[in-house]
Amino acid sequence: MEVAKTIVSVRGLVKAARSKGKRIGFVPTMGALHIGHIFLIETAVKKSDFVVVSIFVNPAQFGPGEDFEKYPRPLEADLEICRKAGVDVVFAPACRQMYPSENLTWVNVEKLTEQLCGRFRPGHFRGVTTVCAKLFNIVAPDIAFFGQKDAQQAIVIKRMVVDLNVPLEIVVCPTVRSPDGLAVSSRNKYLTVEQKKDAAFVYKSLQKCREMVDVGITDSRTIITEMRKILSRALSIEIEYISIVDAETLQELDRIGRRVLVAVAVRIGSTRLIDNILVDLSKQ
Amino acid sequence: MEVAKTIVSVRGLVKAARSKGKRIGFVPTMGALHIGHIFLIETAVKKSDFVVVSIFVNPAQFGPGEDFEKYPRPLEADLEICRKAGVDVVFAPACRQMYPSENLTWVNVEKLTEQLCGRFRPGHFRGVTTVCAKLFNIVAPDIAFFGQKDAQQAIVIKRMVVDLNVPLEIVVCPTVRSPDGLAVSSRNKYLTVEQKKDAAFVYKSLQKCREMVDVGITDSRTIITEMRKILSRALSIEIEYISIVDAETLQELDRIGRRVLVAVAVRIGSTRLIDNILVDLSKQ
Repeated sequence: MEVAKTIVSVRGLVKAARSKGKRIGFVPTMGALHIGHIFLIETAVKKSDFVVVSIFVNPAQFGPGEDFEKYPRPLEADLEICRKAGVDVVFAPACRQMYPSENLTWVNVEKLTEQLCGRFRPGHFRGVTTVCAKLFNIVAPDIAFFGQKDAQQAIVIKRMVVDLNVPLEIVVCPTVRSPDGLAVSSRNKYLTVEQKKDAAFVYKSLQKCREMVDVGITDSRTIITEMRKILSRALSIEIEYISIVDAETLQELDRIGRRVLVAVAVRIGSTRLIDNILVDLSKQ
Repeated sequence: MEVAKTIVSVRGLVKAARSKGKRIGFVPTMGALHIGHIFLIETAVKKSDFVVVSIFVNPAQFGPGEDFEKYPRPLEADLEICRKAGVDVVFAPACRQMYPSENLTWVNVEKLTEQLCGRFRPGHFRGVTTVCAKLFNIVAPDIAFFGQKDAQQAIVIKRMVVDLNVPLEIVVCPTVRSPDGLAVSSRNKYLTVEQKKDAAFVYKSLQKCREMVDVGITDSRTIITEMRKILSRALSIEIEYISIVDAETLQELDRIGRRVLVAVAVRIGSTRLIDNILVDLSKQ
């Protein structure tokens, strides 16, 4: 496995692989790799011939007062995980590689970024789409892998790729969960043992939603009320939002139908956690 | 010469050329090709092995009340010009190829788009950078050619390419002028014979600027006052702006120094014309 610190070197490595006819797979990450990332990487290894993982904690997607400074950066452990998973190149640039001067150019996806997390993290998705546009231009992959846990991010990136004609296939991989249902996330490291127990209630609330749908209850307000009750059992949880939206347009729905995203964001202490499930009545 | 109407077909043609090791040159245009474009195309033919010209009147860069509807679209004549100039592929997509659904994703360059024409054409540069980002992803050129006549556009595009790590070299070619000095432009077609005579005063005002600099006058306000006097001799000219700015940051300058852009925008009847010169005191 090669570790590229510069844009020039990662481009050279990808170019050499491409010249051998290899299909380039790409997993963009902020490091602090966990089994969710490993699942993305394993999928990339299966679906492509040459896998690039980027590790870059992107300042542009953190708001003021968010956890940019304290975000975990265990680079050596991350590299070991990549090595074991069969990654070909890790691209781990310093900040000045990615933003050598003031960044004036922003890629913004309208509408889709104004709902859900976008309401609570102004500028976040603009930072994500901008750095992904940059990374896609640097790595020039054929296929890139994102996690369903960050559902809105995946939807926004997909739309950016379509609108800007990026010659790239986007694959969204299912959320990986701990045995208690908690969606794995680099931010789980911030939680105490007690907080982790509370965090499991997020998935319990989503399971409650699924159970209600299974018995024919589809009214959003009724479902959200029950989900709120489940979450209220975890004393440390502050709900940011519980939303039932169209999985493509992210528009709020009064009633669950086809291709619906049920998304939750909470705060536990100073940690923000998100989770979601996809529900599709036409597939029941 | 091939004429590609679809994204799939232009990509196929470029891919075939690239697989033969050819360097891809690209001239994005809105058609209504004139000797300025021909100069860009000839430069592209010299500097690359396979030349793609796009012809697309991009609605996203026209404001309400601007000339999108009446913008000239002489496709057959344009194709003939391209054929003679040695173009390999003309990409002439219909609007629904470029914008098949509502465009939600916008590429915006801050600061540089807020000066000069950006003040008078809100949204214009956002439309330009977005369509160029799309075209660069579609054509995947190695080198692209823009005209110095649209100085701010060239500066904005260059910055977008740097900020987003687009793997592309941008070449800016000198302005081509009629014998009377008028910068050639597709919009000159809107002018009557009388208006064309007035339009020549735009370059006369820029020449006045250069003459003043040559005799050591560098104060912006003094120079702009004299330029304004020249322009006032043309009765049909309404001045939009006369600006003396840094050629990289586009910040207004009190005094002419190194790498300075002197830019003029006027209206003649309902036609908007722009022109500029570069002045560099360090090269006097």
